[in-house]
Amino acid sequence: TQKDHSDLASFQSERVCVFGTGDLGRSLGLRLLQAGYGVVFGSRRPHSSSSLLPHGAQVLGHAAAAQSAHLIFIAVQREHYDFLVPLANQLKGKVLVDLSNNLKKNQYPEANAEYLQSLVPGAEVVKGFNTLSAWSLQNGPSDANRQVYICGESVEAKQAVIAVAIKLGFSALDRGFLSVARELEDFPLQLFPQWRLPLRIAIGLSAAFFFYLLIRDIIYAYVTQSKDISFRIMVSLANKVCPIVSLIMLSLCYLPGVLASFLQLYRGTKYRRFPDWLDRWMLCRKQLGLLALGFAFLHVLYTLIIPIRYYVWFKNRTTQFDMTTAWRGDSYLSLGILGFGLYVLLGITSLPSVSNALSWREFSFIQSKLGHLTLLLCTAHTYLYGWNRFLSSSTYKWYTPPGYMLCLVLPSVVLLLKLLLITPCVDRTITRIRQGWERGADQRNPKDSQPLIP
Amino acid sequence: TQKDHSDLASFQSERVCVFGTGDLGRSLGLRLLQAGYGVVFGSRRPHSSSSLLPHGAQVLGHAAAAQSAHLIFIAVQREHYDFLVPLANQLKGKVLVDLSNNLKKNQYPEANAEYLQSLVPGAEVVKGFNTLSAWSLQNGPSDANRQVYICGESVEAKQAVIAVAIKLGFSALDRGFLSVARELEDFPLQLFPQWRLPLRIAIGLSAAFFFYLLIRDIIYAYVTQSKDISFRIMVSLANKVCPIVSLIMLSLCYLPGVLASFLQLYRGTKYRRFPDWLDRWMLCRKQLGLLALGFAFLHVLYTLIIPIRYYVWFKNRTTQFDMTTAWRGDSYLSLGILGFGLYVLLGITSLPSVSNALSWREFSFIQSKLGHLTLLLCTAHTYLYGWNRFLSSSTYKWYTPPGYMLCLVLPSVVLLLKLLLITPCVDRTITRIRQGWERGADQRNPKDSQPLIP
Amino acid sequence: TQKDHSDLASFQSERVCVFGTGDLGRSLGLRLLQAGYGVVFGSRRPHSSSSLLPHGAQVLGHAAAAQSAHLIFIAVQREHYDFLVPLANQLKGKVLVDLSNNLKKNQYPEANAEYLQSLVPGAEVVKGFNTLSAWSLQNGPSDANRQVYICGESVEAKQAVIAVAIKLGFSALDRGFLSVARELEDFPLQLFPQWRLPLRIAIGLSAAFFFYLLIRDIIYAYVTQSKDISFRIMVSLANKVCPIVSLIMLSLCYLPGVLASFLQLYRGTKYRRFPDWLDRWMLCRKQLGLLALGFAFLHVLYTLIIPIRYYVWFKNRTTQFDMTTAWRGDSYLSLGILGFGLYVLLGITSLPSVSNALSWREFSFIQSKLGHLTLLLCTAHTYLYGWNRFLSSSTYKWYTPPGYMLCLVLPSVVLLLKLLLITPCVDRTITRIRQGWERGADQRNPKDSQPLIP
Repeated sequence: TQKDHSDLASFQSERVCVFGTGDLGRSLGLRLLQAGYGVVFGSRRPHSSSSLLPHGAQVLGHAAAAQSAHLIFIAVQREHYDFLVPLANQLKGKVLVDLSNNLKKNQYPEANAEYLQSLVPGAEVVKGFNTLSAWSLQNGPSDANRQVYICGESVEAKQAVIAVAIKLGFSALDRGFLSVARELEDFPLQLFPQWRLPLRIAIGLSAAFFFYLLIRDIIYAYVTQSKDISFRIMVSLANKVCPIVSLIMLSLCYLPGVLASFLQLYRGTKYRRFPDWLDRWMLCRKQLGLLALGFAFLHVLYTLIIPIRYYVWFKNRTTQFDMTTAWRGDSYLSLGILGFGLYVLLGITSLPSVSNALSWREFSFIQSKLGHLTLLLCTAHTYLYGWNRFLSSSTYKWYTPPGYMLCLVLPSVVLLLKLLLITPCVDRTITRIRQGWERGADQRNPKDSQPLIP
Repeated sequence: TQKDHSDLASFQSERVCVFGTGDLGRSLGLRLLQAGYGVVFGSRRPHSSSSLLPHGAQVLGHAAAAQSAHLIFIAVQREHYDFLVPLANQLKGKVLVDLSNNLKKNQYPEANAEYLQSLVPGAEVVKGFNTLSAWSLQNGPSDANRQVYICGESVEAKQAVIAVAIKLGFSALDRGFLSVARELEDFPLQLFPQWRLPLRIAIGLSAAFFFYLLIRDIIYAYVTQSKDISFRIMVSLANKVCPIVSLIMLSLCYLPGVLASFLQLYRGTKYRRFPDWLDRWMLCRKQLGLLALGFAFLHVLYTLIIPIRYYVWFKNRTTQFDMTTAWRGDSYLSLGILGFGLYVLLGITSLPSVSNALSWREFSFIQSKLGHLTLLLCTAHTYLYGWNRFLSSSTYKWYTPPGYMLCLVLPSVVLLLKLLLITPCVDRTITRIRQGWERGADQRNPKDSQPLIP
Repeated sequence: TQKDHSDLASFQSERVCVFGTGDLGRSLGLRLLQAGYGVVFGSRRPHSSSSLLPHGAQVLGHAAAAQSAHLIFIAVQREHYDFLVPLANQLKGKVLVDLSNNLKKNQYPEANAEYLQSLVPGAEVVKGFNTLSAWSLQNGPSDANRQVYICGESVEAKQAVIAVAIKLGFSALDRGFLSVARELEDFPLQLFPQWRLPLRIAIGLSAAFFFYLLIRDIIYAYVTQSKDISFRIMVSLANKVCPIVSLIMLSLCYLPGVLASFLQLYRGTKYRRFPDWLDRWMLCRKQLGLLALGFAFLHVLYTLIIPIRYYVWFKNRTTQFDMTTAWRGDSYLSLGILGFGLYVLLGITSLPSVSNALSWREFSFIQSKLGHLTLLLCTAHTYLYGWNRFLSSSTYKWYTPPGYMLCLVLPSVVLLLKLLLITPCVDRTITRIRQGWERGADQRNPKDSQPLIP
């Protein structure tokens, strides 16, 4: 039963120690107890703090607590680590899990975990669990697929910590050696890094088109006809900015893919890295698309409330019924609706749990095929909106084109390039390249290549 | 190769036994076979039942089946457990997994698993898998992040069961000793425990405001002008109740957080528990918010169909165009739209898979910062709706304020309190408290404290 | 410390080898390095390819690489497997993980993994990881709950591969012996298998009703009054097809459940398989429901834009205000809105991450109880739309009933049958049957039965 005992040791009835009786320490202790561990809190003033501690936990002085367990969680602020120095003997050979975080990046010269290791060289420091909040520690199970990242020098130490993490219902990922600690400590401080660029683009475009349209519509009317229609800013203008930004960002989300294909075509191989800007761009396509969906959503709402606005009722209704206009108007609306429907579908399939349930081929089918179809529908929707006004000179107030014309440039380009790519001959070459073929490299042996799943 | 054999034993080619050929038994057997186990069904009448059993499974009498495996799943109703008594010898030292559930809570004096243990003291009973449906057992992989909860006295036994659970693609959580079994058996019987309170609040508020508005609008019109506008109940009234309830519940969802902060301020420490009512309240904030979103969603639909309702066309349209009214009306709509947009964003980020993908800081940024912004927008939206009618006496039929005024009280209070909290001086104190500082406790050593991730 | 070493061996500091420097090979190598493995690439031309390989990886000739590790990932196209034959000696006893995929199903007589095994009989071939894209291999952690399916003859080999998979943050499922490989290789090629049937139904229904309504509305008007209203196709017609298809598919999604109950009632037992067509039908209920939701969504948008369409303003508005019409119109709209609200709720709860967070009872409550309520509301919504036109002969152009009448048949039937099922006496029998009771089988011992969780 040697194995049973090792199991016994590695899983259960094992006592673990927690230094620090703050939020995180207490929540962690609670989860450990629930998972069947014996928990010993190490505290400077056991009695004052014990009142708050989860029922069933033991509270001892630091030294005694340290001796009682092999695994010790350090839920204490870095500023107070020095209290561990005198405990060096009790901590020798123990596994110290550093849960600490900082208030801002690069607050200290070295990572907290590395600092801890330097203070207690005899112990085996493992960084981990710091990416969790006290909250998600308390409600672990509901949060089952939350990853726990750990790193450290000693393999055995990391194994022990991973075992605990799994026992608590988390899935642990070993990120390597202690040098990664800094990265792990910066993680909780990050705020939507991949969303930064797309958000900047969205805000930039919105601002630009807002002022452009402000001049073309409101100010123009004021200057030329000295008519004050400034109130249009709230709805009419917003309802022009939203669709414009949405369409542009949607095309920005499919442009890099097209560029990449042309680059591969030009280079005649897929075995060369893309320029960094293209890589970065491709990595934020999802965010670009979701922001575009957001703007489309607002556009839909802004459009649907038009008839509710009371002054709409004074609009001059003398225009005669005209079949062409009816056709155009209805197709315009219909395309918009279908486009938005697909838009929403794309958004739903980019939800983590949905995309995880799809096979890779299914995911790329939706995101690429249906994605380009969405772009096509929305672009056609906009062209129909413009209709014959492209030609009438009255459209070009102060010789500037209206917003919808400007926003049609990019999507048209993307669609044209895409059209080029799916022409049989080009498509064939691309496919061969993706399967590892290299132009002018046929004497070289293309053996070591793996096709993308078709 | 001692280790290999232990692996061998603990994972594969191992035969497991299933007592009971009902739905659950059969589904379980099927999954076990797919996962590579040898499966032996124990049945009273092997031949009659075998027709239904998954292909590849073996069917034996109970005694023979019991002897053939170390791990035995009991997929039988508690009422029939007595048939296990005569098998005591064959079951000695075996691991019995109790999958049973009851039809209602507290149906029996003790938990089924404890009853089973008392019947077969020689065996090691483990409670588990009972929280799964036959369905989710059949489609395991698609349901990968479904937790399996187990409990039992013997560590080795639980290890063996956990190994099987993981092998079947579930993540197992050891909840402790057999005394927890009752809790696990009650779990499948629960029906939205955290939703109860929020739902009651929602229904209560809806009913209250429905009758209040019924009297103020329909009955008032009938009594004073003997005009029957009862048909308004279906849309107009519903479209007043929905936004009112939505706004109130949204503020109810941010009130506890504000109260908690003030409590911490008042106590000057975070190391004291909140009163239970506050804890319970904070635990159902998510549900409150989602219900509020639901009502807001209905409000949007009810508003958008207004122009479709045919009698709208008879509305008197003689009012002159007026700039202020236009400004007010459009801002009112615009704020509503933006508010709803953020509302939806909050809803999306509270989807498990999305919130799990966020770092803790990102999640709290959205739920707190954007959440309060949503509340602000929706409140402003309502104030604009009221506009100058707050002053005109005609608004106060029978001396009662209209619904939107009543519903503005709570959000205004919440926003004011929040405003107080973010004033620099107060904010600084709160932050220090959250980082473990305690008022008038500076001689006590604040070492054992861990800052919330800022 | 024998255990520690075995851990050491099974987890860390272990070198793994990757044959093939294509996309998949490189991505895999990168993940392996991140997870703390030592990675050796086997390449025909180490120097030319090394430029592209992840930093920290070693590149050797195939023979040397093979000797350096126990576990070898074969990220090479099947066509090139023959280069492994001369390496037979170095590969003896090694674990070869076959990651390959084909471009279409049944491309080769036997599965790639089986072919590989036949080429290198000395090695232990394991099929696995082929269901992942290069992309999801690179971004593993974000994709944590992605399942990895593996199969193979040797248990130890599979254990080793599972250990790596878990280390990389995936959850591995052992699907059995190498004979399953074909199935695993076909998986990435599949494109929404469960969606095929529902999609066909949806398209079929849409087409049928489109032409039916085209004749009844557009062509009829043209023939009888020689009036061209073809422009109505874009919105009016679409807005008739969508709700019709949506309602029919929603009822198709609840019909099988009702049929199944009646079948059990008729058979007097639940221990007999349902006919295959019924099983298949029940398995695609979710897809049917989601498609129905999609059509309902379009219906809502199409309805809401009605007042925006410019010619709507010419509609004859002379009809007098009439209380009954007002009541009917508003109830019609209100029921539609509530129905759609529940519709959306059903859709949300069928998101994997949401349904996984629900207990089985909660899930079935929503999908069954609320589902039938949705069907009821939507059906009532349609009946109110028809209202008294059911009787007026003018409704039946060319003696054909309008679309909404046709689409009312199925839901009405489903609701009637459901009504029958919930009548106390029938309900009691069903419940007993579901708990394992069998009619006329009481002398047979119903011991081996397990109630569905109530």
